Amino acid sequence: MGRGLHVAVVGATGAVGQQMLKTLADRDFEMDTLTLLSSKRSAGTKVTFRGQEYTVQEATPESFEGVNIALFSAGGNVSKALAPEAVKRGAIVVDNTSAFRMDENTPLVVPEVNEKDLHDHQGIIANPNCSTIQMVAALEPLRQAYGLKKVIVSTYQAVSGAGHEAIDELYSQSQAILNKEDVTPEVMPYQIAFNAIPQIDKFQDNGYTFEEMKMINETKKIMHLPELEVAATCVRLPIETGHSESVYVELESNDATVDDIKSILKDAPGITLQDDPSQQIYPMPANAVGKNDVFVGRIRKDLDRPNGFHLWIVSDNLLKGAAWNSVQIAESLKALKLV
Amino acid sequence: MGRGLHVAVVGATGAVGQQMLKTLADRDFEMDTLTLLSSKRSAGTKVTFRGQEYTVQEATPESFEGVNIALFSAGGNVSKALAPEAVKRGAIVVDNTSAFRMDENTPLVVPEVNEKDLHDHQGIIANPNCSTIQMVAALEPLRQAYGLKKVIVSTYQAVSGAGHEAIDELYSQSQAILNKEDVTPEVMPYQIAFNAIPQIDKFQDNGYTFEEMKMINETKKIMHLPELEVAATCVRLPIETGHSESVYVELESNDATVDDIKSILKDAPGITLQDDPSQQIYPMPANAVGKNDVFVGRIRKDLDRPNGFHLWIVSDNLLKGAAWNSVQIAESLKALKLV
Repeated sequence: MGRGLHVAVVGATGAVGQQMLKTLADRDFEMDTLTLLSSKRSAGTKVTFRGQEYTVQEATPESFEGVNIALFSAGGNVSKALAPEAVKRGAIVVDNTSAFRMDENTPLVVPEVNEKDLHDHQGIIANPNCSTIQMVAALEPLRQAYGLKKVIVSTYQAVSGAGHEAIDELYSQSQAILNKEDVTPEVMPYQIAFNAIPQIDKFQDNGYTFEEMKMINETKKIMHLPELEVAATCVRLPIETGHSESVYVELESNDATVDDIKSILKDAPGITLQDDPSQQIYPMPANAVGKNDVFVGRIRKDLDRPNGFHLWIVSDNLLKGAAWNSVQIAESLKALKLV
Repeated sequence: MGRGLHVAVVGATGAVGQQMLKTLADRDFEMDTLTLLSSKRSAGTKVTFRGQEYTVQEATPESFEGVNIALFSAGGNVSKALAPEAVKRGAIVVDNTSAFRMDENTPLVVPEVNEKDLHDHQGIIANPNCSTIQMVAALEPLRQAYGLKKVIVSTYQAVSGAGHEAIDELYSQSQAILNKEDVTPEVMPYQIAFNAIPQIDKFQDNGYTFEEMKMINETKKIMHLPELEVAATCVRLPIETGHSESVYVELESNDATVDDIKSILKDAPGITLQDDPSQQIYPMPANAVGKNDVFVGRIRKDLDRPNGFHLWIVSDNLLKGAAWNSVQIAESLKALKLV
């Protein structure tokens, strides 16, 4: 399908929704009709897309009549309430919330890793958590070449994953601290400016946060490796956009070298290798903002275990971590003639 | 010795030197004479200590005549040139630079871990790297109870370890970015405000930075565990003071539980346990500033390996990571009657 395609963006005024519109425009995504939806509160907002002004409408079940692809990024509760309504009306939903990610009937897709899972969709396709996406995109080429045994990740996460309010809080707190004024956290649990908060999302009974368990469970599901050992520590930092990850991986094979891994990642889809210590070249969030790729560098062999390697993985959490991966799923649905 | 003690602080105007003076005052460190020394450039600076004004003098070999304890924190080159001169004149040097840390005749000491190594000193005692100190202080109680097999650390390091200029750069860059102005890095290799730089110190040929190799080699030396597996990834962040570390540890024993580890750390010297997820209590750099202890929280069992645990370790890099550990060594020297 190409002609007659009707796309809806739910959460069009949010931080991710805006990146979805920018990505649809950047990619020249072919469609005939675009419907922009939001909560009642943001309805009425005017948004310009490809030179045309759109009025954002309140999302209701009826909003999805005639829609072919609905890109959801308006929070888990909106997805739970409206995604089934969209599917009932014939739409395929690409959902950027955690509402359906671990549902066994919902494919959880990073196109570079498991595009083929799209064939099994039953109306809803889930977009994984931002920190999961960039990690599995970088690990998949290593899995294919050497197999994966254990992954330990420590994240360095930007605030934009928590929305516009979190970005505003980072900057207003930073200014207050520069002015030597007191700060009162409202969006983040504690002061985020010039600080590190080792908590993203709520805690589970096992002491891990939901964000950490998302990384663990989603990685196993996307890679179809239920036995893969995965551990995560997720930390919020005073960075607007761009998540970084310090990743230790144990491969199944003892045969890999740093040069092998660089060579594999250099040619991998969606990956940009940035790894030249002699020139101080390595990925950083400030350089990843606005780019679709996942950047990998600081690749080192563990000094003790022959199958151990360390990597530094950075990507724009609003793009590959959210909007771009969602649009990429929509592009795959077209390419696979599933829509 | 107590009466007649003559202490010199070399690098008295620097970020660490100032914390050393504050720590000597806070601890009511007993001494009769204090000499403040610096480079030629900073000589003449007036410094107030315990209500008395001191004039900082240029450090020369003759400055150390009659000095019993010299606390050095003026850069590796100053230590290499002057520490042997101080020793020649009868002083015991506590050196906060990396100049002598891996010298086999120089004890590398964190009092909670290897205070007894002070007995073997030959004039110079090295204070370890800031990120090493807080990690070994937190790991030593686990080593004693269960043995250590492997340690993987990812650091979240503040800029103050790089001195006053780095702090100024963080704040001036932050203000420039809030003003939407361009920034030009001078102290850090790249923009540090609202960014993450996965490089501290220079690169070695094996792809690790000197900072990472310091953590690896110093940990083995301090703990007397040459076979311990240690890996590190060191990252600079837009935080003024307070280093954080995400640490994965594999114990020799499979018998430990999270409650056991909490109980052991709760009673360990120099450690404050901050670990109550139900109350969102965990260590953060903003809370650690100005405190001597090492704060540990987010203690979790690895979900796959029975001997694997994850910890989040935070401390003031200028205090336990530098000034306080140095003063603590001086206190130990007194207590052990080595001075």
